[in-house]
Amino acid sequence: MRISELSRRSGVSVPTIKYYIREELLPGGRLTSPNQADYDEQHLRRLRLIRALIGVRGLSVDATRQVLSALAEQQSSQHIVLGLALGVIPAAGPDRAAAEREPTEHEPTKQDGAVDALMRELGWRVYDGSPARAVLADTLASLQEFGVALDWTGLLPYARLAEQTARLDLDALEGAPDPLEMAERAVVLTALLEPALLALRRLAQEDESARRHGG
Amino acid sequence: MRISELSRRSGVSVPTIKYYIREELLPGGRLTSPNQADYDEQHLRRLRLIRALIGVRGLSVDATRQVLSALAEQQSSQHIVLGLALGVIPAAGPDRAAAEREPTEHEPTKQDGAVDALMRELGWRVYDGSPARAVLADTLASLQEFGVALDWTGLLPYARLAEQTARLDLDALEGAPDPLEMAERAVVLTALLEPALLALRRLAQEDESARRHGG
Repeated sequence: MRISELSRRSGVSVPTIKYYIREELLPGGRLTSPNQADYDEQHLRRLRLIRALIGVRGLSVDATRQVLSALAEQQSSQHIVLGLALGVIPAAGPDRAAAEREPTEHEPTKQDGAVDALMRELGWRVYDGSPARAVLADTLASLQEFGVALDWTGLLPYARLAEQTARLDLDALEGAPDPLEMAERAVVLTALLEPALLALRRLAQEDESARRHGG
Repeated sequence: MRISELSRRSGVSVPTIKYYIREELLPGGRLTSPNQADYDEQHLRRLRLIRALIGVRGLSVDATRQVLSALAEQQSSQHIVLGLALGVIPAAGPDRAAAEREPTEHEPTKQDGAVDALMRELGWRVYDGSPARAVLADTLASLQEFGVALDWTGLLPYARLAEQTARLDLDALEGAPDPLEMAERAVVLTALLEPALLALRRLAQEDESARRHGG
């Protein structure tokens, strides 16, 4: 297909496609004349994934290049493809991963031990360096600072509901025809649904409050 | 108690307390000498709620003043106190509420009808003007734009899990000794847990992926 059709089918503008090619996120098309190139379905799938990583997950061009290159090496493992796409497995080695975690300014605290205890109790097989662990530790620290009597055991029932949510998420990714498309779906579904899940919680709280306390 | 003790027990600095008094968010203390005032438990409870509304929910001083004044009028109804604290019921009348919704730039779309259908199917008793409805409509529109085959019926199982989450949330608010404290707990718990719930989802996805695809 021509670049104009690639643009229409991917929802990415022609100048942006050219930029991604210059930045080597996307291979160039096969030249059919000095001024014209031909693109195939593989370009389209890769471009959709780039759009999801940059436009939905908010990655930089550099971070996107790393994820794409890690995906290219690891696409035989669905588990690693998902982890890379969702950001739970860093695209670069452990040193780089530590550097990437710095912006969250997470200092090791005793709450990290609480998160370890939570993961053990749940029996979850999760990566030690996942940024989500730091988020949990920081939340526990904030709750404590605000005097809320909720420790890691209080998160257990929420975690059980998260397990059910994750099953729905993974069900929606089954049957993706290839690793690139599964990675794109994972990014889009996980990131786009986040505000909706929080909105559903607010509305469900309102309904539950109406049931308990009268509307 | 003196202002220094009020500061220590609320976690709000003395200059900030003085600023809240000038802004009439908090009534002044009872003067015991020309330069000294006495504060009571009611001041402490109100100050904690102000800290939660401004520091956790991120409201402006003006919006906080409106919520506090609406709470003072409505504190006999637990349902309305919760709705005000959680932001599902606007603190000012419907005109003001419409104006407040403008910053979200939500234009009425056909997705609003989809959200209505979802609420009917769930049987949820929720306020028509809740900002959370607009978030759901915008999410459905984004999913469509990205070609994800998930319409409002796809949100139903997530909504059922949100009902269970909301029951846990409301359980944690039971037994609050007075409306101000219930409002503060509602704000703190709802807002502080949001990143943790999303983090639990990511970790649960990773675990579920390990189970399905091998770690």
